[in-house]
This record gives sequence, structure tokens and C-alpha cells, in this order.
Amino acid sequence: MEFMKLKDLGEFKFIERIGKDIRLSSRVIKGIGDDAAVLKYKKDKFLLFTTDMLVEGAHFYRSSRPESVGEKALSSNISDIAAMGGTPKFSVISIGMPGGLDLRYADGLYRGIKRAARMFGIDLVGGDTVSSEKIVINIALIGEVEKENLVLRSGAKENDAIFVTGCIGGSIKGKHLNFTPRIKEARFLVKNFKINSMIDVSDGLLADLGHILQESSKGAMILENSVPISKATKGFDSGVRDGEDFELIFTLPERHAARLEDKWPFKTRLSRIGTILNKRRGFYLIRKNGKSERVEPIGFTHF
Amino acid sequence: MEFMKLKDLGEFKFIERIGKDIRLSSRVIKGIGDDAAVLKYKKDKFLLFTTDMLVEGAHFYRSSRPESVGEKALSSNISDIAAMGGTPKFSVISIGMPGGLDLRYADGLYRGIKRAARMFGIDLVGGDTVSSEKIVINIALIGEVEKENLVLRSGAKENDAIFVTGCIGGSIKGKHLNFTPRIKEARFLVKNFKINSMIDVSDGLLADLGHILQESSKGAMILENSVPISKATKGFDSGVRDGEDFELIFTLPERHAARLEDKWPFKTRLSRIGTILNKRRGFYLIRKNGKSERVEPIGFTHF
Repeated sequence: MEFMKLKDLGEFKFIERIGKDIRLSSRVIKGIGDDAAVLKYKKDKFLLFTTDMLVEGAHFYRSSRPESVGEKALSSNISDIAAMGGTPKFSVISIGMPGGLDLRYADGLYRGIKRAARMFGIDLVGGDTVSSEKIVINIALIGEVEKENLVLRSGAKENDAIFVTGCIGGSIKGKHLNFTPRIKEARFLVKNFKINSMIDVSDGLLADLGHILQESSKGAMILENSVPISKATKGFDSGVRDGEDFELIFTLPERHAARLEDKWPFKTRLSRIGTILNKRRGFYLIRKNGKSERVEPIGFTHF
Repeated sequence: MEFMKLKDLGEFKFIERIGKDIRLSSRVIKGIGDDAAVLKYKKDKFLLFTTDMLVEGAHFYRSSRPESVGEKALSSNISDIAAMGGTPKFSVISIGMPGGLDLRYADGLYRGIKRAARMFGIDLVGGDTVSSEKIVINIALIGEVEKENLVLRSGAKENDAIFVTGCIGGSIKGKHLNFTPRIKEARFLVKNFKINSMIDVSDGLLADLGHILQESSKGAMILENSVPISKATKGFDSGVRDGEDFELIFTLPERHAARLEDKWPFKTRLSRIGTILNKRRGFYLIRKNGKSERVEPIGFTHF
């Protein structure tokens, strides 16, 4: 008799399965299913809580610069806090390494983590160091957000304009190890505009916009012509499915879109790529030739 | 030319090394170097933050019951919160697993985690699921403690009585995968007594009491006769060096020791094993035959 394997179910189905019978107390504003958990904290603020695991062979190789690997490990968590509209605060670091690892490599990993922590004013307050054949880094990060600045995946409204920061795709060529999480941009957005929904691009543009649509029960239309595809990828169709861009996708009311484009103070590119629609309209793409096409929001999965 | 390896330096030296140039903001009451970090939070409470990583082959085997492995992963973090005098609240779970893993094993891991969460009223609020050849589980846990109930490793005072809960040693025979973190006992202690220092036994009784002595700049005397050694280990000398007992070592003023022994309401064994001394006196043991012996506080290390 053959039993079911993890990969037969797939990553997202498995996560859905484990989340199903979890009951949460009233202290939890948002649990599993956004970039970070949102927890009751103070009168005017929420606590944010997120974690990311990087495994040698899946997320990086022994040949990767250890400083970049360490920096990425913290930066990918910072990107999650950015996507909620918040500010990162406190972090704990677990690293599994083989005892035979060159001490300079181990030092390099921590140097990269410390660099990202310094850059974003994060306190490194603890961790765990264990023995492991393959290098594994897990970082957990606590952030905060003022109640009025919290942004969830689930708030997209019909007729919202959809924007994306930076360029999309091909991060495997280097950007996935060398990127600046969009904290500055996200904080500008939440302080100056009514952002209805936001997510960071980790599974791929289509998959992550798909998460917003699912959580918000909405449809969307995006324009191939408007999506800023990186030169590091083969073109639109691969770019929008590549993962780990660590850019922000967000939506805001159509009537504020022009003011945003006008006031945007950063060098970071800002592109309006489409519109949120009623759920009945589905998720579709308008090709350069004007033809429309249904989107299957599939991106990177681990299993 | 030969370069230095991680194991040439050793786990504790490496942790010291990475902690050296970390500067912390005034929001941090206690960073690296206790069972959990202590962070500013509310007028009357501190936030506690801790993390633990378990790696297949080092902490458990594929033949271990997955429910027990999952439960241990959360319980070892709960034990850290207990050692600070606090209450566990919110947790994020990262698991690395091979795609070919039997789904029943993966389900079992989460079942164990959920069991511990339910038992201690912890909200499971997020996580990360990644692909990894060996199973890796990392849990990060947020807790709280009333300011007046916080206990650090560094508060031991001369003439404090040293106590330990439960039995020590031999956890490898099963207890390391099946234990109840001492939250109930710790909360009773901090609410009813002036506990000067506390730690949970993860590296071994002598090593962990050694951490208290180092952080408190104190010496200690312990009595071989008084240490409750488990039947699962070969005797005193191995028992006090075995790791992962997840019992509590704590110290309180001598004059309260008798009242504590009188009022202790739990079935959990409570043993007075020695006395905190001036640092000049060092760390020593009185053998069953009355002879005294200097203690080298060495326990389990990963490298």
C-alpha cells in the first residue's frame, strides 16, 4: 500500500490543512495567511510577528557569499513587515551548521545579518546555534505598526489601482541575495495614502497578486505592457512567475493613483500594472496585442 | 594553510564572539545570554522572546514519534519562558521537510505542536514551510511577564538556597521527547517567593548552574547526596552532565527556603541541592563521603 507524500498534496494545500483546526484567541487580529501575524499590543499599535527559514541547497549554496545569505535571511523577514505597513524591531536568529564549517563562513553569515539589522535599526536579541549537516538559518522578527497604518492582503476594493515597486523576475541571477526590503517605500505609502491591500513578491508576481485576490475575494485585470520585467529574466511569462523579487504589490483607490505617481519621492521604480475587479470578472491579463487571457496564479512552491 | 573550523572554537566561544559587537537599543532590557530576551512592552509588563531549532539526526531521528518531536519543539521554548517567570503567548513555526516525506509524519509533527500550544494557551499565528533533505523545526515564541515577576540568570545572591525541580539526567532515554515544561511551577514561584535567579536545564545541571554563577558572578556549593538523579542515567557523574532535562534550577534567599518546601503544592519533586557562595569560593561539590571537589561546569555542546 502506498501512502500519500507531502509533495502529492503540495505546499499550499498542506498549509491550508494544518491551519484548519487552529483556534485563536481574541488577542490575534490576523494569524496564518498574511505576510506577518497581527497581534494586540498597545492602545495605538499592533505587534507584527513573522519568520523565514533558509536551507542550503534550496535557497542558497555553499558557494554563495555568506554575507549575502545572512543579509537575505533577515531582509526577507523585513520585507514581510514592510508588506504590513510596519517597522521591524526585534529579531532572534537560529543557525544550524556543521562543526567542520570554516569559521570565516560562519562569521560571514552573522556579518550579513548584523548589516541588515544595523541598516533597519533592528535589535538582535537572541538565538540558537545547533549542529546540522546542511546550513539552515531561521530568523523570527517582531515589528510594530500604528493601528491606522496596518495593511492586510484582504482589503483590496473594486476599482483599486494595482501598483508594483521595482522590476519583476530573474532574481535568481543575483537579486534574491542582494535586495533592499521596501520599508522606506511602504512607510511612505501607509503614512500618506489609503493603501487597501499589500503583499511582498516572494512566490512570484501572479501568485502573490493571486493571494491578494483570494483574501479579498476580488478579480483583477493586468496589462502585460505595464509590468516592469527585469532584464535578468526571459520575458514577461517567466518574469511574472519567478519568485523572491521582494518588491511590493499594493492597491489603492483609483482616484488617488495620479497623486501617488506625482508625489512618489524615491528612485525605486513605481508601476501601475492593472485594476482590481469584481470577483465574477476573474483574474485576467491583457497581452501586448490587445488580446485578453485568463491567469493561473501559479508561482514557486516548495513541494 | 589550514583555516579554523567552527568546532575548533566551540559553541560557547562562537556565541560569545558573535555577541561581542552587537549594540542594542534602550528598548532591550536583556539580549543574548539568558533563556529569553526581555523587551520593553507595557507599563507593567515585559515582552519575552525566544527561539529553538531542532535538527533531524542531532535532536531526534526519523524513527522518533513525530507527535513527540513536534511537542518537544514547542515545549523547549515554553521551558525558556518558564525560566524567566513568564507566560507563553504567540508562536511562529518553521519546518523544513523533504517533499517525499510521508504526509502522516508531517501531520504528526504539527499535531504535537498543536497539542503543546493548546495545553499552554499559545496562539499559533504563522510560520514557514520549506523543502529540506533533513527535517528541521524552528519555533519562535513570544511571552510576557509582569515586571515584578521577571527572573534573570544574573540575580543569584550569596547564601541563596539552590533548588531544582524533578529528576536530573538520562533524558536521552525518553524524557527529552516527553516532558512538561515547568510553567505552573515557575509561575507559583515568582508569584509567591522572591526568586533571585532561574534557568532551565538544557545543557546539563552543572553547566546550567554554571551559567547562573557566571552571570551572577558567584560561587556555589552543591551536595551530591541532595541531587535527585534519575534512574535512567548511570549515576551522579553522568546525570549532572546530561542535557535536556527541562527542569528548573532556581535560587532564593536562605530564610525563605523552609517556607517554600512547606508550601510547595505540586507532585513535581523539589530538591534543595546547595548554596550560592561568594565568587572567591568557586564552584564545588561535596561528595557522599564528605570530600569536596572542584566542579568543571561542562555540559552538552553542539560543536
